Amino acid sequence: MILIENAKVLSDGKLKSANILIEENKIKAIGDVKDKSDYVINAKELAVIPGLFNSHTHCAMTLFRGYAEDMPLQEWLEKKIWPAEARLNEEIVYWASKLACVEMLKSGTTFFFDMYFFPSATARAVEETGIRACLSSAFFDFFSKDLLEANLKRVEKELNELKNFKVLRAIAPHAVYTVSLEGLKRAMEIAEKEDIFVHFHLAETEKEVIDFRKKNGNGIVKALDEIGFLNQRLISAHCVWLEKEEIELMAKRKVSAVHCPTSNMKLSVGKALNYPEMKKAGLNVLLGTDGTASNNSLDMLREMKVSALLQKFYYGADSFKAVDAFKIATENASKAFGIKAGKVEVGWLADLVLIDLSKIPMNPCHDLIANLVYSSASECIDTVIVDGKIVVENGYFEGEEKILEKFNKIAEKFFGSA
Amino acid sequence: MILIENAKVLSDGKLKSANILIEENKIKAIGDVKDKSDYVINAKELAVIPGLFNSHTHCAMTLFRGYAEDMPLQEWLEKKIWPAEARLNEEIVYWASKLACVEMLKSGTTFFFDMYFFPSATARAVEETGIRACLSSAFFDFFSKDLLEANLKRVEKELNELKNFKVLRAIAPHAVYTVSLEGLKRAMEIAEKEDIFVHFHLAETEKEVIDFRKKNGNGIVKALDEIGFLNQRLISAHCVWLEKEEIELMAKRKVSAVHCPTSNMKLSVGKALNYPEMKKAGLNVLLGTDGTASNNSLDMLREMKVSALLQKFYYGADSFKAVDAFKIATENASKAFGIKAGKVEVGWLADLVLIDLSKIPMNPCHDLIANLVYSSASECIDTVIVDGKIVVENGYFEGEEKILEKFNKIAEKFFGSA
Repeated sequence: MILIENAKVLSDGKLKSANILIEENKIKAIGDVKDKSDYVINAKELAVIPGLFNSHTHCAMTLFRGYAEDMPLQEWLEKKIWPAEARLNEEIVYWASKLACVEMLKSGTTFFFDMYFFPSATARAVEETGIRACLSSAFFDFFSKDLLEANLKRVEKELNELKNFKVLRAIAPHAVYTVSLEGLKRAMEIAEKEDIFVHFHLAETEKEVIDFRKKNGNGIVKALDEIGFLNQRLISAHCVWLEKEEIELMAKRKVSAVHCPTSNMKLSVGKALNYPEMKKAGLNVLLGTDGTASNNSLDMLREMKVSALLQKFYYGADSFKAVDAFKIATENASKAFGIKAGKVEVGWLADLVLIDLSKIPMNPCHDLIANLVYSSASECIDTVIVDGKIVVENGYFEGEEKILEKFNKIAEKFFGSA
Repeated sequence: MILIENAKVLSDGKLKSANILIEENKIKAIGDVKDKSDYVINAKELAVIPGLFNSHTHCAMTLFRGYAEDMPLQEWLEKKIWPAEARLNEEIVYWASKLACVEMLKSGTTFFFDMYFFPSATARAVEETGIRACLSSAFFDFFSKDLLEANLKRVEKELNELKNFKVLRAIAPHAVYTVSLEGLKRAMEIAEKEDIFVHFHLAETEKEVIDFRKKNGNGIVKALDEIGFLNQRLISAHCVWLEKEEIELMAKRKVSAVHCPTSNMKLSVGKALNYPEMKKAGLNVLLGTDGTASNNSLDMLREMKVSALLQKFYYGADSFKAVDAFKIATENASKAFGIKAGKVEVGWLADLVLIDLSKIPMNPCHDLIANLVYSSASECIDTVIVDGKIVVENGYFEGEEKILEKFNKIAEKFFGSA
């Protein structure tokens, strides 16, 4: 049992002092509790918030941070990222994922939704660092039947391996410009059979939308609906180039959309996800950093800020508030993934972040959520608890130097042999 | 003398190891120097960059961080900020400025250009914290002759007081919607007489531009030129709503424009400063956070990232690179203010920031500038040197807790009495 003593907790928009008791992996009590505990955290200067959900990333791409800068999306993928990715192996994905997990934990993220190669390697990193995750087995088929069959064989094997780890699972057909409609249909069938999520890139660029219509004589969302691809298993990143009717149909089918504002701005996709329309339609919106190669950070505190900046810039100063940024980074994701975290409430999972209110960016504290979204930085993260276990303490992850050292050795070898 | 030993320094785009010797307030030597020094910094895991220039802020507005969120510009000014500002006093400006100076130093800023009330109070904070600054005496006249005369009297007194401090000076007529053309003309005359800078808000919103044209039958820039307001003393924040010809005229007159991307996005000004056009015209562009009330951070590392994100989003992925963000935050500002800092070179001022390369966001290090701009955070700042003196060491500013404590007491009193 862990007792968080004299913590500052938000209650009706105001900061109040309370004790929080954690038993096993859940919040057992909040208020005037004084049970005997194995461990007491003096939280007099700490605010307790739910851990953040990074709902779209490719965490092993930390390897490519700063590797290929200032290029448009297609060129960036085709000339730099894909050739390098062809040389990946399990070891390097494991170490890059591990470093990414530590980076995420240290900046207040307790859950991430990943799409990448060698998902078992990432699963090992997840288990060893103590973060929570949903990992995907990803594939392309480039519109070849043979490639599809070969890839699905690999995917089924990978999904099977993932059962050995404490992670949620997903299948990840990459996007409509890399996977055939037949491939998407088969992916959803596998998702239904295995009862898992589908991780997907949707309507990221205008080119994707125009090319699809040219080829298929139909809008993407309508085509996806016709093959039964739209349902609440589907969690789609980007969702930038969507029409009103497409948003409404996705809402009706209970799809979730993941806003990736930094990546969208950096790769210049030309438009912002339409949050006002999505909110009106009741479409569930989440927040993600995307991979380090296109962000180049996994820091969800920053991502909340950029999400608010982009929405306000594009749709008006009152279109999106600090509380919206916080919501898409917490409870909306909790709902999408069916994880009872994302709120500081009795009976909910103890996935908690303790914010150091004595750090300058948190002062003055007129509005905790505004400070979190607009001014806090990773240096304000004091303690991170996932599944009832303390994984970051005093802003430090036990053993982080060794992970970094090992990662750098492996990375040097990888790029040295290019 | 300070010796920075085995530091990583950028040379032709690559990181090389070198010693840096600081004598008095200047860089005396770079390379294989081994002079006896009073103080040696082991910089094996540190990269040395020039300190960052925050070229537009209202630093005492730290008081209003998170105070009035999610509102459009005019409403935000008229309903929340101006009424609160009417109650300001010297003591509160001093403590809020002091906290802001520490926040800036700890995130790698060694110079800031401020516009606010009670500039002598801010000047005391500047001297005591060791940061470098150009401080302005600000005024409005709301198109009243009497108010103009009264304000200019105060301004001349304040500018005179500022001579007692080690700061650069500026006069700051607020903007065309708060100061008459006569007021602007008089401000420039004072600037010329005193040989100081002019700090100004220009073309921040479309409303400002349209209203001015309605009232004066002329574009703002043309009108300013006619009264002799455009010259190299003028450093103008925002510069969002400018036409091509206006940009060209400003370039010709050697005006500097300050990009404030976070503030512009947060207050939804509807457009991005046209960097591509400004670059083509040869207009000198700087970077600023604006005040904490509209950002809500003074962290220039983040501001560099948002500047790149906004430019790429608005003008294309290759319109603005990481090196551009770094340049507008360093050498362009050094040029505008005539301060020989902003480069790590022999004979230049020792205004230096040592970046901790062992922090996760700095790894891997394919590209130091890309990491600085896109992934570094204040936690990566190890040491900050201003004018040859170490002011931040191991990420810590001596006495910061006491400054924060005192600030919070004063702020509580200020808002409590509202």
